[in-house]
Amino acid sequence: MSASTLLSITALHARVEAILLKAGVNPAQAGAVARVITAGERDACKSHGIYRIEGILRTIKAGKVRVDAVPELVPAPGSAIVRVNAGGGFANPAFELGLPELVERTRSLGLAAMVINDCGHFSALWPEAEALTEQGLAAMVMCPSYATVAPSGGKKPLLGTNPFAFGWPRADRSPYVFDFATSVAARGEIELHRRAGKPLPEGWAIDAEGNPTTDPQAALAGAMLPFGGHKGSAISTMIELLAGILIGDLTSEEALTKLGTTTLLPTHGELIIAFSPEKFAAGRPGNPVAHAEVLFEAIAGQGARLPSQRRFAARVKSEAEGITLTAAEIEQLDRLQTLGLDAVA
Amino acid sequence: MSASTLLSITALHARVEAILLKAGVNPAQAGAVARVITAGERDACKSHGIYRIEGILRTIKAGKVRVDAVPELVPAPGSAIVRVNAGGGFANPAFELGLPELVERTRSLGLAAMVINDCGHFSALWPEAEALTEQGLAAMVMCPSYATVAPSGGKKPLLGTNPFAFGWPRADRSPYVFDFATSVAARGEIELHRRAGKPLPEGWAIDAEGNPTTDPQAALAGAMLPFGGHKGSAISTMIELLAGILIGDLTSEEALTKLGTTTLLPTHGELIIAFSPEKFAAGRPGNPVAHAEVLFEAIAGQGARLPSQRRFAARVKSEAEGITLTAAEIEQLDRLQTLGLDAVA
Repeated sequence: MSASTLLSITALHARVEAILLKAGVNPAQAGAVARVITAGERDACKSHGIYRIEGILRTIKAGKVRVDAVPELVPAPGSAIVRVNAGGGFANPAFELGLPELVERTRSLGLAAMVINDCGHFSALWPEAEALTEQGLAAMVMCPSYATVAPSGGKKPLLGTNPFAFGWPRADRSPYVFDFATSVAARGEIELHRRAGKPLPEGWAIDAEGNPTTDPQAALAGAMLPFGGHKGSAISTMIELLAGILIGDLTSEEALTKLGTTTLLPTHGELIIAFSPEKFAAGRPGNPVAHAEVLFEAIAGQGARLPSQRRFAARVKSEAEGITLTAAEIEQLDRLQTLGLDAVA
Repeated sequence: MSASTLLSITALHARVEAILLKAGVNPAQAGAVARVITAGERDACKSHGIYRIEGILRTIKAGKVRVDAVPELVPAPGSAIVRVNAGGGFANPAFELGLPELVERTRSLGLAAMVINDCGHFSALWPEAEALTEQGLAAMVMCPSYATVAPSGGKKPLLGTNPFAFGWPRADRSPYVFDFATSVAARGEIELHRRAGKPLPEGWAIDAEGNPTTDPQAALAGAMLPFGGHKGSAISTMIELLAGILIGDLTSEEALTKLGTTTLLPTHGELIIAFSPEKFAAGRPGNPVAHAEVLFEAIAGQGARLPSQRRFAARVKSEAEGITLTAAEIEQLDRLQTLGLDAVA
């Protein structure tokens, strides 16, 4: 058994970026995608870490994301909407391109949105929520995915796992951030149960006939269920409407039809809404960022956890000590670096 | 047994408005509050119908809402925020005052928000979501309430039942609208179980020690739980942050502390975010309002219900035939009209 390896955050970023460049991703995109993957490892959020690189390479190899795309800011002067066309490339560089303008418009108007169109979507949403909290702004982030979830009371996949994230800035500490799938469970969790031969908890899924099932195989052939019954289903539908249809982009069903598989990155759009606490509270007593601390203390004070705390603790450790990868993970990086797109089917 | 009475929508509105005027509510507010109560009856949404009048009168009698308030539009030129100060009066006339400017700014900027501050909050949120869909806009509406819900993993009331509503315009038919409490159940449902001597379903509530309970009495002394576990809890917390703290107004805990009871209308703020489909989809293929119909058909086509359909069916009937009230309800209206504030404790 070989030992684990300690890498600095910068060194890991450079390795991931080099793999993407080797796979043909242009420099305009490789850095941004590598930043999100590296952030996943830094925060011990392995589901968005280096394990994702293979899926990215498979999507590239299948021709379902444009490695040569250069995101473009679409002018919309005098509006509260910042629009970025990802040109069939990754969402991450599109987000980075639009961010400064989103921040500027939010500060000036109090409220603004970024629309990302035509993107291959690899990302957790929390890095984007945090990019706005770092600027002292609050943010909601949402996007469709591909149809794997039945609406409440329905029988067939239609909605995506449609993640929803929110961030709120805190002075001199990690922000309040949550980011979750609006399905009861992530598709990967069902796959893990299947591999382990374990039944699913009740309420996670239905089979192909629309009946409740705890059999992971039947669930994968059927549909997942939204979290929180009809309420979660309504929120997931809202995400289809706002982050798909409103912005002139694809729903989760259309994304799946276009892609033909759930094993590659979906192509669709994304919506980010940013709020300026300063503008929203103007003329009112008190400071919202300070006021929010009372709420956070009351939550933590009764033993309830604020979201993302485990991630932030891992981040502190990674920033101080670096990121530890197993020998197998290092080997995997070596293999992807050497073989490029030949490493994947 | 006396028969039921059929009233036109206009006639019921006039009766409710007259009761409010008799109770001292100024004309600037009485019409708007009566419109929401009448809309509740029209839609067979009894929980926001005439049954609420007594609670309103009790709140007035306790001096917890200002009957002489005149809502004021606070100028914020060049911003995406329309701010209305309700001046300690009801939310409804404040919303009506701000609506035209919210519509205008949303059409011009693509995205805008209305902030209502210092309001006594009587309302379902769906009438406000629908006021925006009638203008061809989409909308999110949210507000805190008073602390009766424990955060997920917590032990004590801190969050409100914090309703969240969303509306999407549909051409030539009723809009897509949902409006729900972010608690598993409404407080009134727990009270109904208590009166009926029935245990609560599991997962609704905890007792005063923070342990799960199905005893309604213990639940009322303890706390309700958010819908959907930690995800619903996060959304409810977001509502405290956006529709309380961001807008420089009270959290649910502060509203309860100020009021000292959960039996009167809470005082706090409200946030409405409006979206222009035309602006958001500008330059993209297709029309979002037409596109959304594909999604709605796919939902309904697999036997899942769109939200609010029962309400809309009742509305069609009420608009054609009028609103039927029982003899007891008519007697109650007579009594409130005759006695005014003397009708309540």
